[in-house]
Amino acid sequence: MATSSLFIAVDWGTSHLRAYLCEVRAQSTLKLLAQRDGPGVVKANQNFEQTLIDTIAVWKQEYGSLPIYIAGQITSSIGWHETPYLECPINPEGLLNAAVSFDCDGHIIKALPGTKCTLQNGLFDVMRGEELQILGFLKQNPEYQQGKILLCLPGTHTKWVLINNGEIICFKTAMTGELYDLLCHQSVLIPNDCAEGEFDFKAFEQGCELTLGSDSGNLAHGIFSVRTRQLSKELTPVQAKAYLSGVLIGSDVRAARHASEWQLLSDTQVVVIGTKQLNKCFTTALNQIGVKCVEFDIKTATLSGFNYLFNLESKK
Amino acid sequence: MATSSLFIAVDWGTSHLRAYLCEVRAQSTLKLLAQRDGPGVVKANQNFEQTLIDTIAVWKQEYGSLPIYIAGQITSSIGWHETPYLECPINPEGLLNAAVSFDCDGHIIKALPGTKCTLQNGLFDVMRGEELQILGFLKQNPEYQQGKILLCLPGTHTKWVLINNGEIICFKTAMTGELYDLLCHQSVLIPNDCAEGEFDFKAFEQGCELTLGSDSGNLAHGIFSVRTRQLSKELTPVQAKAYLSGVLIGSDVRAARHASEWQLLSDTQVVVIGTKQLNKCFTTALNQIGVKCVEFDIKTATLSGFNYLFNLESKK
Repeated sequence: MATSSLFIAVDWGTSHLRAYLCEVRAQSTLKLLAQRDGPGVVKANQNFEQTLIDTIAVWKQEYGSLPIYIAGQITSSIGWHETPYLECPINPEGLLNAAVSFDCDGHIIKALPGTKCTLQNGLFDVMRGEELQILGFLKQNPEYQQGKILLCLPGTHTKWVLINNGEIICFKTAMTGELYDLLCHQSVLIPNDCAEGEFDFKAFEQGCELTLGSDSGNLAHGIFSVRTRQLSKELTPVQAKAYLSGVLIGSDVRAARHASEWQLLSDTQVVVIGTKQLNKCFTTALNQIGVKCVEFDIKTATLSGFNYLFNLESKK
Repeated sequence: MATSSLFIAVDWGTSHLRAYLCEVRAQSTLKLLAQRDGPGVVKANQNFEQTLIDTIAVWKQEYGSLPIYIAGQITSSIGWHETPYLECPINPEGLLNAAVSFDCDGHIIKALPGTKCTLQNGLFDVMRGEELQILGFLKQNPEYQQGKILLCLPGTHTKWVLINNGEIICFKTAMTGELYDLLCHQSVLIPNDCAEGEFDFKAFEQGCELTLGSDSGNLAHGIFSVRTRQLSKELTPVQAKAYLSGVLIGSDVRAARHASEWQLLSDTQVVVIGTKQLNKCFTTALNQIGVKCVEFDIKTATLSGFNYLFNLESKK
């Protein structure tokens, strides 16, 4: 096996580091040989080089200094080696052109850039990592390379991304996952001793209804119902967690529906690219307001994006 | 000095314990002799009895076992001795009728009840402590005991309270202060090493504008601008904190304006009862949408409420 067909892909976001040992096979298909996880950008606490070295140490021992591709919040101003933001509209095939290369413990690392766009209210928005996942999704599903589609990439920060003919036109961020995490673990809403338990989709849908179907402001004034519905014994603490998730995701989806940057009518198809659990939550909320959607797996999209860039580079 | 004219008032909320040594003088007026602060309900971590004993130890040494009145989140299900929720509409003069008495280290403690109400969407809401502050405000400002007024009590949780002829009709809670605290100290929005600095009212007003003047959903999709406006160097981290406060308070005020439970037209007067800083923030936001408001001091209202109940009891 030529080492040139092996590489390491690192998706290093705010909350998680995910390192993948990848092998490229015939017809440029990718086989995932192994995965190792580590702390996200916040928890790594500026100790980035050592964190990465520790995470991939066993692979280095076996395969030597493989090339590394790295994407996500780690390339931002609060991360390691900062890369630029490319201005939308942009075709994500060009990501490598603005990558920043550097050496780390004998590995050559290529850190990918982020993207930015200006919204209709004059604010601008940014993302890092999702543009690679979008590239991967489009390469695996070329039928989506024509026409307009709205992508939803849920995670710590949900990204809603308008694509036209394979180009990223603009996008909006909602801090839904981060808010959930803070409110679930550090607010008065959920008891500290709340048991783990199966996600209650019925309670989730109740939460969605509160924010999806109501006047403006229900996130500000409605979120306290997570507590009052426990006081009234309508919800157990475990159910309340799912209900809280519904309140937040409902608000996120409602805002996306009303975003002036795109027309999210009932016949618009939304493509949700996330984990199985988040895909189910977002499609449930979108279906509640009559929006059709299809789901794709985020890890598959991520690996497809890295694979495309590795093959592009190898052919140079 | 007869010890019967001395008592201890304890306002023990989610975030702060505030104990006041009070002396009642001629015409039932109150003099605050001393104040001692301690940890709120969350930080006291179930160690309530010892926390209170420690906080008031110096007063016990000097004056013996004074009577204690206690109000706030400490009387809730996540607190110490739980008291009931009285159903609105309610006249807060009757609070003592549902107080729970118990002994603590030789002191007789009277723990005051909370109140609850059912909102138009079928959800119910609760408060503890604010009904005492409302009582105190109304006793000090009898001109507000006639007709309808809307009160705003900002804090960890903002309470918007509709009063009619001195009765609490209904109210709504927004977790604005708690959200600010979580997002300011534990999210990606504000850098960990952000300096303390003077509150920037211009940045605050910018934040308000984003959520006050815009379509629904701007809290979900707009809050990320706290970060992007730092990336674009429009805001320093210190300014970004004030901007974040504006985004949250603007959203809170917008939801209050549109609440179906009351008519908040431009000629409605809102009474804001809070600390000097929060009063300025909320009146600024309310003025931005053309709502007239007057400000009162929350500590004065709290002490007036305790004083009224102590005198009521003494006359029995």
